[in-house]
Amino acid sequence: MINNISLKEIGKMLQDAESILLFPHENADGDALGSCVALCTTLRNEGKRASVYVGEKPADYISFIAGDCCVTENLREENPDICLCVDCSEESRIPGRLNAYNSGKVRLTVDHHLATGGFGDYYYIDEKAAATGELIYDIIREMGAEMSRPAAEALFVAISTDTGNFRHSNTTPKTHRMAAELLEAGIDRNRVMVELYENVDLRQLKVKAAALDEMEIFAGGKGAITRVSRDMLDGAGASDEHGETVIDMLRDIKGVEIAAVLKEKSDGRIKVSLRAKSAGRVNEIAAKFGGGGHVKAAGCTLEMSPEEALETMKREITHSLEGISGGNK
Amino acid sequence: MINNISLKEIGKMLQDAESILLFPHENADGDALGSCVALCTTLRNEGKRASVYVGEKPADYISFIAGDCCVTENLREENPDICLCVDCSEESRIPGRLNAYNSGKVRLTVDHHLATGGFGDYYYIDEKAAATGELIYDIIREMGAEMSRPAAEALFVAISTDTGNFRHSNTTPKTHRMAAELLEAGIDRNRVMVELYENVDLRQLKVKAAALDEMEIFAGGKGAITRVSRDMLDGAGASDEHGETVIDMLRDIKGVEIAAVLKEKSDGRIKVSLRAKSAGRVNEIAAKFGGGGHVKAAGCTLEMSPEEALETMKREITHSLEGISGGNK
Repeated sequence: MINNISLKEIGKMLQDAESILLFPHENADGDALGSCVALCTTLRNEGKRASVYVGEKPADYISFIAGDCCVTENLREENPDICLCVDCSEESRIPGRLNAYNSGKVRLTVDHHLATGGFGDYYYIDEKAAATGELIYDIIREMGAEMSRPAAEALFVAISTDTGNFRHSNTTPKTHRMAAELLEAGIDRNRVMVELYENVDLRQLKVKAAALDEMEIFAGGKGAITRVSRDMLDGAGASDEHGETVIDMLRDIKGVEIAAVLKEKSDGRIKVSLRAKSAGRVNEIAAKFGGGGHVKAAGCTLEMSPEEALETMKREITHSLEGISGGNK
Repeated sequence: MINNISLKEIGKMLQDAESILLFPHENADGDALGSCVALCTTLRNEGKRASVYVGEKPADYISFIAGDCCVTENLREENPDICLCVDCSEESRIPGRLNAYNSGKVRLTVDHHLATGGFGDYYYIDEKAAATGELIYDIIREMGAEMSRPAAEALFVAISTDTGNFRHSNTTPKTHRMAAELLEAGIDRNRVMVELYENVDLRQLKVKAAALDEMEIFAGGKGAITRVSRDMLDGAGASDEHGETVIDMLRDIKGVEIAAVLKEKSDGRIKVSLRAKSAGRVNEIAAKFGGGGHVKAAGCTLEMSPEEALETMKREITHSLEGISGGNK
């Protein structure tokens, strides 16, 4: 946690302002967009001029929560009282919008990614929060504002998407209590679940099936590896994004402790995604090749042939697994 | 809700007893076993003789919570003070154990399936509970007993498995608040998630891929249908159970409103699983063929050729979809 202001003070600052411009990071995910939309809706209900200033159209799967909150360059407020960067504390993640951010009379940052530090005049970064949505929820409470149904729905999207719908290890008792209160605000739970999780692109399933077909299980069943080639993507009429969930399928296989997917990029390089289930430390593997990440989720980029990349990763994973005694049982 | 006793009275009755035998339904799922184990553990901590009397070994995916609670015929208590049937209110679902149940001095039933009515001397059936685990949680609280870590873990398994880890529409604010309190009892959340959801049988994935390969999207993208043939199962070295999740994959496809899977049984009959996403009513389709179920999940059995079954179901689903105006958007 690093901060030079409290959430209560942020709440008061927002209540005292007349115009607020909110900045999600580029390629806004459910947490960034949901947090911004929830706060924007609440601020408007409190009689303020508020908008979410986006660099690009929100991704399809979360666009249902955007309402009329989002604005692009031409329609944004000039020199607002407050500019607030949400779910992001690095200037590099709001490219093209940094001048607009700096035009605010006061600049704030609220985030749960502990990166190089806050930016702007005031910052509140709590890496223990499962989602930035949890911090925005607290700010709305500190403001004394009513939790409207659209705001509750946007915050539910924020915490659901950032926790894998309460599955990932960042989920805390607070996350569940917040979910309970958001449900009580009257959100259409079934619609949210359908939009987020029953809206799978058929191309994604086809890429998964093709990747499964080429998968190798090795290291006595504890390693799983496959590739997502340009041919597979072309065969499914798919693009890079449709191969993103292949790695989860591999990690979820019974007995597998470390999983890897080699994704061939259009420039010939190979992007490696790595996941550990229980005891593995895949950030150490990624670091050997100039990559990085967390203990259980990491990645790196290789400049070698697909065959060489496959053998290299199998060797590294086997070596890493030898250092693990038991796994999860 | 039907009941002739309160949860508070059940709690008192358990506190006053010395020996209690718990009965999960046959093919115990996470809710039945988790509820039994949680209550058994708690009763033992309160100084009572308690066991979970099972007809068969618990399924692999939930066996990690069983501890030493489960007993079979030879080791069960004779004429216990209380016999309690859990997550089941039909005599037919404890076959082979009904005499043992009736040997109890008092016979209780706690369930969340509203079937033909309670059985035994006292019953408490609340169909609004997301899982029977929620009712057992309340009983433990009414008993004034401490929520131990193993009991909390078993109850977490109960509510997680019966709600699709907080995804299904039966999830309520109470479910989330209970999850928060169970996490605070110190359960190993990561282990539970790995055991329940990162333990997928490879054969299941192979059957899914084969079923995807034969899938047809019809009715303007709103219908999806496929089959799970004996050849597919044999090709993957799989058995019937490995085809059970194919239907979820189809329902989750973007745009699909009604999904069907035709499963060829070893006796030549065809078991049909049906799912609706938003506006569809698949119980009405199933009922036409002597089947049944809920609005969004139903099934029936057909005695016809696979080709005829496919055409019949496509026709019925198309007809049913014509009665729906828009779907979820």
